[in-house]
Amino acid sequence: MTEKAFQDYYSEDLSHCYGCGRLNEHGLHIKSHWEGEEAVCSFNPKPYHMAIPGYVYGGLIASIIDCHATGTAAAATYRAEGRGMDTEPSLRFLTASLHVDYLRPTPLDGPLEVRARVKEIKGRKVVVAATLLAQGEVRARGEVVTVQMPDHLRVPPG
Amino acid sequence: MTEKAFQDYYSEDLSHCYGCGRLNEHGLHIKSHWEGEEAVCSFNPKPYHMAIPGYVYGGLIASIIDCHATGTAAAATYRAEGRGMDTEPSLRFLTASLHVDYLRPTPLDGPLEVRARVKEIKGRKVVVAATLLAQGEVRARGEVVTVQMPDHLRVPPG
Repeated sequence: MTEKAFQDYYSEDLSHCYGCGRLNEHGLHIKSHWEGEEAVCSFNPKPYHMAIPGYVYGGLIASIIDCHATGTAAAATYRAEGRGMDTEPSLRFLTASLHVDYLRPTPLDGPLEVRARVKEIKGRKVVVAATLLAQGEVRARGEVVTVQMPDHLRVPPG
Repeated sequence: MTEKAFQDYYSEDLSHCYGCGRLNEHGLHIKSHWEGEEAVCSFNPKPYHMAIPGYVYGGLIASIIDCHATGTAAAATYRAEGRGMDTEPSLRFLTASLHVDYLRPTPLDGPLEVRARVKEIKGRKVVVAATLLAQGEVRARGEVVTVQMPDHLRVPPG
């Protein structure tokens, strides 16, 4: 896919996230795109992202769902405001709460796909529901409450 | 601390977890210990474990709470059974669900401390409540439902 991902529109100062920042050289670099009303992310785990041999560790699943949801929240808010992701003011969301149900073990070989839908946009809050699939089967479901980042967090703590 | 951590008692075939496996050379190597009725884990995030400059990314917080909780579940079950963690059968828990509330941003410099308590042991299920602190303040709270690993998962998928 050559279309720019949601995360490619994050402003430079907010593109260092380990999960999804394009400028974090150690990070996971997850990328999200619209497919109609769903936001989709495909991710290939590394062999060392294991829980037990053959299966993905739960923290990676939580991390992908988390970053995919905050990206989806931003993209959905641009859509709701009827403007492009390249317009100002730029949007960035943080996670207020994360819930993941691990329904069955997730095989480590092959891509993981996360599909997300916006459940609610209310003021600065966006609630996102996500489903993680591998080998065509649902492996985990998540719900993420995200909140638009307050400006004071743009300055690192002193 | 020289005392062995909960994770040091995991059997060799189940010590590859990215979050807590002593045999995963790329992993986080989180370690948990009892302090009375609480299980405690201290973790120093790397500079690249950031969300935005100065703050820890939520996926790391979820990962530490997750692995600390599964370790606590195993340790608590040995205790409930009145036997040492070096006795057979060895115990290992998986995550059924994970919930994290991010209460305030978590500074990236300095150790994170996770303190966990067992809320319930019921058959093969153990529910663990966890609090994550940094610089003396509570930053996140988690609740993890863990389940004792079924034997068939010891064989990787074919």
